Amino acid sequence: MQWPDYVKIREVGLRDGLQSEDRFVSSEVKIKLLRALIRAGVSAIEATSFVHPRAIPQLSDAEVILDGIGDIPNGVVLSALVGNVMGMQRALNTGVREVMVVVSASEAHNRANVKMSVSQSLQALKEISPLASGGGTGVRGAVATAFGCPDQGKIDRGQVSVVVEGMLEAGIKEITLADTAGLGHPRQVYTLVKELAAGYPEVTWALHFHDTRGLGLANIITGIQAGVTILESSVGGIGGCPAIPGATGNVPTEDLIFMLHSMGIKTSIDLEGIARCTRLLEETLGRSLPARVSHLGCKASYTS
Amino acid sequence: MQWPDYVKIREVGLRDGLQSEDRFVSSEVKIKLLRALIRAGVSAIEATSFVHPRAIPQLSDAEVILDGIGDIPNGVVLSALVGNVMGMQRALNTGVREVMVVVSASEAHNRANVKMSVSQSLQALKEISPLASGGGTGVRGAVATAFGCPDQGKIDRGQVSVVVEGMLEAGIKEITLADTAGLGHPRQVYTLVKELAAGYPEVTWALHFHDTRGLGLANIITGIQAGVTILESSVGGIGGCPAIPGATGNVPTEDLIFMLHSMGIKTSIDLEGIARCTRLLEETLGRSLPARVSHLGCKASYTS
Repeated sequence: MQWPDYVKIREVGLRDGLQSEDRFVSSEVKIKLLRALIRAGVSAIEATSFVHPRAIPQLSDAEVILDGIGDIPNGVVLSALVGNVMGMQRALNTGVREVMVVVSASEAHNRANVKMSVSQSLQALKEISPLASGGGTGVRGAVATAFGCPDQGKIDRGQVSVVVEGMLEAGIKEITLADTAGLGHPRQVYTLVKELAAGYPEVTWALHFHDTRGLGLANIITGIQAGVTILESSVGGIGGCPAIPGATGNVPTEDLIFMLHSMGIKTSIDLEGIARCTRLLEETLGRSLPARVSHLGCKASYTS
Repeated sequence: MQWPDYVKIREVGLRDGLQSEDRFVSSEVKIKLLRALIRAGVSAIEATSFVHPRAIPQLSDAEVILDGIGDIPNGVVLSALVGNVMGMQRALNTGVREVMVVVSASEAHNRANVKMSVSQSLQALKEISPLASGGGTGVRGAVATAFGCPDQGKIDRGQVSVVVEGMLEAGIKEITLADTAGLGHPRQVYTLVKELAAGYPEVTWALHFHDTRGLGLANIITGIQAGVTILESSVGGIGGCPAIPGATGNVPTEDLIFMLHSMGIKTSIDLEGIARCTRLLEETLGRSLPARVSHLGCKASYTS
């Protein structure tokens, strides 16, 4: 069995996590968290969102965050979610290095999430994405509910392909397959990734699993076996989905890193540094987060 | 990627789970749980322990349980933990179908767990195991801390092999590799199982993962890929290890079954039936257990 030497972690807790919180976390704490993540060695971070503040008030301070963080080290890419042309223009004004767009494979979930049909969303991408060209801002896409939808049920490969092809038409070649409701399973992950990778060889794939039924790390194992080396996770396991009641957080970054490091797969991220971010988040939110490793101590030496 | 059609679940919550609880769960509740597990379709259950009541007072009612359960359906095997000749004689008096013996791969953990060296424990197996012969009682073995020990650190394959060979000398050919402290990782699981299966082809292997760092299901995925089709888990995720402070429960039976059924792997177990057992356990213990699926609802249809 072959395993990769290195896996890239995209930290999504500050966006996917904080957008589901009842309370507004102050810009100061967000900036402190961003700096701590960068210090821990995280090089790809979904930092905030330019979705309208009425839709996601928790992240209404995108400009404050991206201005306040100041210079960031070479090789670190901060990313921000964008939902329409107006959001894209706000993003471009901040000079953020990357924007992310989301379209759901599930018609029902896409309507619940952004009040548009899948085809309207894909049409919108063709207006949003070209605005980035030439300005040094990258655009990446995420296919939400790629592994199942609580409203619509099973999602077949054809529905995922429609979104992938729409993204390719909009010039987007870095695509995350997101298990928004934590309904994917390891066999499905392997098969879907293998088929999509064969069908769209020009795409660089990433995987994003909510850990709703505890299958996140198991899904990541077969995702890696299928060839994916970019994985999204959230510090402490914070997260959810506003359009899916009861949805829980992403795979916890520290548990994922513990697993990868134990397996001899490098990430360039310091586990203790992530545990410090989780403690700061837990103090801020006043509750314990789902991550196991931060609470147990991070030593991976037993298992090397 | 090939997956098995069927996986056998050995339910260990009533033994490995309840032995770690502060309180004594009444014999009536234990019998009720056993019956509910059998009704749910579980065919292999570690029901109790004949270890001395001073060591595990929580399971001091082994005879009451095995007498009280009465006739059990054909094909269902109840099993009981045995630590020495006296325990074995108690077990044989009850007519239990299977006894289980445990030896740790870690010298330090074996001494902490049973106050004997590994070689003393293996010597004891040679006295205990033959007592079962001819009486229709099977003997299975478990190698504790097979994937790492919090006291001793890394456990190498040689230490596991010493225990496996001792068990084979005692006539034991059904062996569980147990990750007692939740320190194993998917790459190690695959490699160790493959190597042991090649080295000892006469053994039928099972796997047992504590979910301390959340890697239980991920470890099971590569364990299945390495060819294992007997998996141990505990209803609700109850469990721990008296000799390992902070150890948490086994992989939750319902989360494991949800994953397997989603993947099209049969278990013959009804998920709703397991969720009922978890609710009964939670009511009895007065706290929520770690399993995810029982709390979310068991529908696996999204992901088929």
